[in-house]
Amino acid sequence: MIRTLSALCKNEPGVLGQMALECGKYNANILSLAAGETENPEISRIVLCVDGDDAAIDEVEKYLESLDAIIQIDDLSRKDFVDRELVMVKVSMDRANTGQLMQIFEVFRANVVGMGQETVTVELSGDQERVDGLIKILAPYGIKSMCRSGMIALKRGDE
Amino acid sequence: MIRTLSALCKNEPGVLGQMALECGKYNANILSLAAGETENPEISRIVLCVDGDDAAIDEVEKYLESLDAIIQIDDLSRKDFVDRELVMVKVSMDRANTGQLMQIFEVFRANVVGMGQETVTVELSGDQERVDGLIKILAPYGIKSMCRSGMIALKRGDE
Repeated sequence: MIRTLSALCKNEPGVLGQMALECGKYNANILSLAAGETENPEISRIVLCVDGDDAAIDEVEKYLESLDAIIQIDDLSRKDFVDRELVMVKVSMDRANTGQLMQIFEVFRANVVGMGQETVTVELSGDQERVDGLIKILAPYGIKSMCRSGMIALKRGDE
Repeated sequence: MIRTLSALCKNEPGVLGQMALECGKYNANILSLAAGETENPEISRIVLCVDGDDAAIDEVEKYLESLDAIIQIDDLSRKDFVDRELVMVKVSMDRANTGQLMQIFEVFRANVVGMGQETVTVELSGDQERVDGLIKILAPYGIKSMCRSGMIALKRGDE
């Protein structure tokens, strides 16, 4: 089962490593991980999507909660949250398919961020479904390279 | 010095942990990390921004290159690349400041993704400067929570 955990943690070296190792210990595969600053420069938020046995992920969560560096951990799979991902895709473009590609970008509201001789690079932010959708529709044109941020998420409402 | 490394690696458990531990060993602080899938489901791309001694980061890079799971590693600080980050910010809103906030969102082209009784949540993708700018301008209104994806990057041009 795929679950999404969001951890607020102190900016100490080694936290990320411990997290990743613990997932490995329980055979929980990290599908994506996004670690970045918060409004407080001493605190980071790490969002990780893990795939594995439900009981195993419970163990990982319990272990993380026990760490000094972890301030709070939320299981976002069990709460109502807004999730977003960012992707950049470099796709082959020639004169014959330029129009089609531009139409796709417009429909998805993907922004062109770079242009080469034979490629165009776009960025898109959206939920996973939307990001997957863009990648699927661009694949037949030839994706040269791609970078995905991993999911970030915040709880819905005021909390 | 802050440097950005981009690694293409096989989707094997433990790679992230090794990476993070190695940075810790050389006292290189991970400022942000984004790990996500690529066009090939067996391969992930990990972009990490590290702050530390230049020689130490060279060592980290050399070590990562030596790992079997790492297919390619690029020092993006030394190449021309497009970088983007995604942020979601939940900021306090009341009747008196709604207009101002909406104007800020419009100028930054930030999208409203959620609305509570006393807060509004927006997303923005852009380079670091733009993301920092939005956070700075929203701070006086009261940032309730925030999630940043960490930088993702692709080389400019066709390569």
